[in-house]
Amino acid sequence: MIKNQDFLKKENQILVLKLIIDKGPISRAEIAKKTKMSPTSASRIVAVLVQHELIREIEAKTDTVGRKATYFVPNESAVISAGIEINKEVVRIGFLNFVGELIAIKSYHFVPEDPSVTAEFVKCKLFEMMKHKNIHRARLAGICVGLPGLIDHKKGNVKLSAQFNWKDIPFLELLRSKIDLPLYIDNELKLQALAEYNRGGNSKQENMVVISFGSGVGSALISKGEIYRGEDNFAGEIGHTIVDPLGAYCPCGNFGCLQTYIAEQFLLDEASKTKKLNSIDDLISVAKEGEKWASNILDKATTYAALTVNNVICLNNPDVVVLTGSLVVNHPEIREEVLRKCKDQIWSAAAETFRLDTTEMGSEGVVVGAALSVQRKYLKEINLDHEEFSV
Amino acid sequence: MIKNQDFLKKENQILVLKLIIDKGPISRAEIAKKTKMSPTSASRIVAVLVQHELIREIEAKTDTVGRKATYFVPNESAVISAGIEINKEVVRIGFLNFVGELIAIKSYHFVPEDPSVTAEFVKCKLFEMMKHKNIHRARLAGICVGLPGLIDHKKGNVKLSAQFNWKDIPFLELLRSKIDLPLYIDNELKLQALAEYNRGGNSKQENMVVISFGSGVGSALISKGEIYRGEDNFAGEIGHTIVDPLGAYCPCGNFGCLQTYIAEQFLLDEASKTKKLNSIDDLISVAKEGEKWASNILDKATTYAALTVNNVICLNNPDVVVLTGSLVVNHPEIREEVLRKCKDQIWSAAAETFRLDTTEMGSEGVVVGAALSVQRKYLKEINLDHEEFSV
Repeated sequence: MIKNQDFLKKENQILVLKLIIDKGPISRAEIAKKTKMSPTSASRIVAVLVQHELIREIEAKTDTVGRKATYFVPNESAVISAGIEINKEVVRIGFLNFVGELIAIKSYHFVPEDPSVTAEFVKCKLFEMMKHKNIHRARLAGICVGLPGLIDHKKGNVKLSAQFNWKDIPFLELLRSKIDLPLYIDNELKLQALAEYNRGGNSKQENMVVISFGSGVGSALISKGEIYRGEDNFAGEIGHTIVDPLGAYCPCGNFGCLQTYIAEQFLLDEASKTKKLNSIDDLISVAKEGEKWASNILDKATTYAALTVNNVICLNNPDVVVLTGSLVVNHPEIREEVLRKCKDQIWSAAAETFRLDTTEMGSEGVVVGAALSVQRKYLKEINLDHEEFSV
Repeated sequence: MIKNQDFLKKENQILVLKLIIDKGPISRAEIAKKTKMSPTSASRIVAVLVQHELIREIEAKTDTVGRKATYFVPNESAVISAGIEINKEVVRIGFLNFVGELIAIKSYHFVPEDPSVTAEFVKCKLFEMMKHKNIHRARLAGICVGLPGLIDHKKGNVKLSAQFNWKDIPFLELLRSKIDLPLYIDNELKLQALAEYNRGGNSKQENMVVISFGSGVGSALISKGEIYRGEDNFAGEIGHTIVDPLGAYCPCGNFGCLQTYIAEQFLLDEASKTKKLNSIDDLISVAKEGEKWASNILDKATTYAALTVNNVICLNNPDVVVLTGSLVVNHPEIREEVLRKCKDQIWSAAAETFRLDTTEMGSEGVVVGAALSVQRKYLKEINLDHEEFSV
């Protein structure tokens, strides 16, 4: 379809607003220069943004002569976005302000079994936090919930979450029946990738991959700033790539899926053939005590983790790889061993083409990414009226 | 940067031209309707395209009253694009006209050893064909050459082509020293994917993957109509994904790379431990004669081919998968077996999400894709002047 003046108006409002969020305080002249707009156009757009209270003026001394000049900064409390993570044992809720600062985050112990009970729990805790933190619903751009598994983000369905034992759950609808605000759901790792992309000094990267080792194995690709989803939002489900057609049985029905070599529950299941253990911490302790079987299980897992990094690199050719997930985040021994093995296992032609990092977001990644995705949607849809403000 | 009137002018010229290429014969009124332009804008753009001889008017009777009306069709000979494939034993050269018809294609037996000799051979045969087919250089939008291996399409270097034994060859520069026309080089499979996307009724697909089984193993992803390249144009190099860290040695230095299970030379190398064979045809014949070792080699290869399809689907989540490469194109027995095994090996959650096809382009895919990539570049850069034609 033809791109017309309306399209330009919207694009240019977004351009100026993003510039002020990223670079403010910034003057009218700098805005015009950096966007290559005429000073008149820049001034007009800035006026609209001020009147909508998305940005505000500040006066500051110029560097040179000490005279006061007008600069623009984002109004950080103008738009708040909520991000929620639901995982196997925790519901985590957080809020980002307009400049992307995490203004509140809280974790609740909760095991999601019944979807409706889960939605009700999310609602109660969300409203509780909003009240407590004095966040008015009028300022909330929306709420995004990140969950593990196959999430149809368009229809809002949880198609399959092996961890929750959910199948074909219209979770967005459930949430909407309880919360009357813009709502979205998405796959947790894709949201975390967005957070890594925006916050880790990674936003100049063209092709970033986040690989998670924990209760499952997954990867998420951000290409040119956008989540690569594939057709049904399951791109990156590397846990079900097959590495050995005669390997161990996977609950998906195939043999030799990568997750059977590496996901926490499978490691504990293997360990239980010798000794019942409750956690990866226990497994590491036993290995440190000199039990060969325990070190063997961990050794195999770290080998396959390094192999996973290689395989994702071959497929996606990223310029930065960020490792995350409880296995590498909570266990420095495992992380170091994976990084060491990566040096040997990465295809030589690819070895110098990317930077390998570990997440620095701790457990906040999904919440931050979810809230960021809300803010992105808000910014994409912004289209403020010029007319009503013209004199 | 701000999007201005110049940007709009260019975008809208391209929009109208593509519409006429895709849907012509088409009237001014239909153009205006489909592009949501004003009739004046549509007429002005059409006039510019006619004067630049990219389209032409035809008169035809309207369906209803039988009066004559003016329609526009692309001038199919206005712009010609050349595509060249260089593979292990063949140089193939072809030309596409402006509406994407292959107007000439020819194959030459040639084994690329010395890069300079190869460039000279390409030049001679290209000019020979142009002369013979009466293609004037003024009408040639450019030439794209597809090669196997790691191709830096931006710098024009062959970083690594194991098949040719080339490393860090500035092949584009070599060609440019001989051919004074717009020139590009790229990875062959990425170009073929473009051809499959454009020609196989696949152009409505959001995420298409082409997987090739032959002298190597590779995959190429087209996402929203664009080749996904990754950072260094090696995305899809699935041949060096590791399936077994204790597997067979691969010349890349790792053990258990997927290509060692499946690429033609590795199958023949395995066979040679029992009997020296010259081709996959021989291997199939021997298997048909009841030699168990030969069927075992083929059985393993087809199992890993199906596993490859699964793994690419898990990573890329495409809506269509096209199989290509000599192993599946030239050997129906192998193709059928791979397709049969795919039914068992594809992750159950993904099984219904894509269509699985085999290429119908025979050996023309790379040439057509290369020429198409030239035409795409031409169309992207089009920016015809309005002014000189205004009255």
